Amino acid sequence: MVYIHLKKVYDGAMDVLDRLSEKYGPRIEEALAKYLLRDAADDFKDAVLYQISTGGKRLRPILTLAVAEAVSGNYERALPAAAIVELIHNYSLIYDDIIDRGEVRRNKPTTRAAFGDYAAILIGIWYREAIEEAVLDTPKPSEFAREVAKVIKAIDEGERLDILFELAGRDDPYFVKARWPSVKLDDYIRMVGLKTGALIAAAAKWGAMSVADDRQLADAAWDFGMNAGIAFQIVDDVLDIFGDPKKFGKEIGKDIKEHKRGNIVVLLGLEELDERLRGELLSILSKPTVSDEDARRGVRILEGTNAKERALALADKYRERALASLSKMPHSKDLEELAAFIVQRQF
Amino acid sequence: MVYIHLKKVYDGAMDVLDRLSEKYGPRIEEALAKYLLRDAADDFKDAVLYQISTGGKRLRPILTLAVAEAVSGNYERALPAAAIVELIHNYSLIYDDIIDRGEVRRNKPTTRAAFGDYAAILIGIWYREAIEEAVLDTPKPSEFAREVAKVIKAIDEGERLDILFELAGRDDPYFVKARWPSVKLDDYIRMVGLKTGALIAAAAKWGAMSVADDRQLADAAWDFGMNAGIAFQIVDDVLDIFGDPKKFGKEIGKDIKEHKRGNIVVLLGLEELDERLRGELLSILSKPTVSDEDARRGVRILEGTNAKERALALADKYRERALASLSKMPHSKDLEELAAFIVQRQF
Repeated sequence: MVYIHLKKVYDGAMDVLDRLSEKYGPRIEEALAKYLLRDAADDFKDAVLYQISTGGKRLRPILTLAVAEAVSGNYERALPAAAIVELIHNYSLIYDDIIDRGEVRRNKPTTRAAFGDYAAILIGIWYREAIEEAVLDTPKPSEFAREVAKVIKAIDEGERLDILFELAGRDDPYFVKARWPSVKLDDYIRMVGLKTGALIAAAAKWGAMSVADDRQLADAAWDFGMNAGIAFQIVDDVLDIFGDPKKFGKEIGKDIKEHKRGNIVVLLGLEELDERLRGELLSILSKPTVSDEDARRGVRILEGTNAKERALALADKYRERALASLSKMPHSKDLEELAAFIVQRQF
Repeated sequence: MVYIHLKKVYDGAMDVLDRLSEKYGPRIEEALAKYLLRDAADDFKDAVLYQISTGGKRLRPILTLAVAEAVSGNYERALPAAAIVELIHNYSLIYDDIIDRGEVRRNKPTTRAAFGDYAAILIGIWYREAIEEAVLDTPKPSEFAREVAKVIKAIDEGERLDILFELAGRDDPYFVKARWPSVKLDDYIRMVGLKTGALIAAAAKWGAMSVADDRQLADAAWDFGMNAGIAFQIVDDVLDIFGDPKKFGKEIGKDIKEHKRGNIVVLLGLEELDERLRGELLSILSKPTVSDEDARRGVRILEGTNAKERALALADKYRERALASLSKMPHSKDLEELAAFIVQRQF
């Protein structure tokens, strides 16, 4: 049921994203290219532009500009901030794909697949300095520099925790040694807040910061994005385990195959299961290679729990918090429709 | 002969480095740990500190502090800048070791060997944000942020060129495709200026910038470091091909094994050789795997040229330029002895 509901909101909300993409898109693309190409050698330019050329909905920079426009009636001064959030997103994707040996993203070869792992590292290093160039173009470079460092550290830490919550599958000495013995709901919320929430929070906050000196407003924008991001990640986790692969383009139970205790359904399911089934699920998650059959068995075990309903109720709680924060911000039709899209659907 | 001469200067100059290490070392270590540990989770701290704990002479931050003290009589305000140069150095080493699959550095396992490639990437990302924290503690955060971005891009570009000057050995699609058809002396000087010169130049310049608003002084410091860095890299290249492995702890002809046209002796040798020997050396450099015997044959071919003498004469030219720039800076015994060490010997 939840999917039909989401599908409906999604179809309607897609209109707002299309509309805002048309409005802001060319300016966002122009800013991204400007910062990435500054100082780049001719025979490095294509390599540097490739990652952002693979697409993405640009939801984060659109959010930045929509907040700026709702607050001040003008989004021009928020363009560097918009570039920063999209560049941080892609900076983290370049390294995520190296770490996860990803071959395809957005139906195209990943940067590491197209150019090689080691070239991808040189490109990743470059992205971080393009971010710095954009920071220097914001209205408050020192404040933005501090914020950017905190957010990149947050994403790095979220990624680290996500990996340390896995039960197997990585042979890096550090991951094997530092793996967590158990994972609680608080740990999960912290991890997804860092991994997913912080950058959406920053996208909203930095839009406000670019056009106004209003601490309360900036905090409300941050809280909106953080709670919306957590709600999104929870729904994404549910879709990973139970979603229709045809509809959501995901391999069902991918997180089980990836040994993740950092999926909310797995985490809540493990809490509920009796010892026998708990042991079985943990042993599936601990296998060096989890087969399709193992993953399906894991999904069936989780179907026997209330994990899905509890997860969706949790998502609702964060969604409500997000909307409560939004109500403290200046209203605009664009921002409200965009917020509805963000809190309902994945991005 | 050149080695005996260098050895003599080295022994004498080592005293100045020991002395300045004793003087500045504890403050440098304290600053490095402060910026690296800020916001770090308890189970990440050891991993984050490991790279800097593997040692290194701290020559760059010592240079920063010696310049600051020569200029102003005080080095306190240059401590963030000193931390920045050492952190940038180690940031680039973490990724260099991933790119080159390095197992051992400074007689210890590299970060990637000790923690794994993918953990090393999370650590590398963290180093860049520790650099940003230090930037925010400098007396001029925006100016330093701009300088730091330029220097990290320079190192990234230098590394990229060094790889594109290789004739074989990497299967990254980008490197294979973008490899340069030929490499000239100007290309080499540009590459080593970026790869090695820029950070030594920055170490000197940022020491001056931390304590004085004097553009000419900052430029002189930059020129000193840049020319000294180029002189160093040329001597290092000569030692790679002709040095005594016992004395310099290097595998002879390692750069030949690594297919490098970006070694000055190889580059100047190729210019001089007749077509037959030129073809033979190029074919050795182009072999997917260069054997010890191949490398020795390559060294013998280069011995038949004037490349070594020409390279050392070139190093002398850059050394003189470095000393000419030094003479435009305030004098101090420490700085002069340190400069003598830097322009003569590797670091």
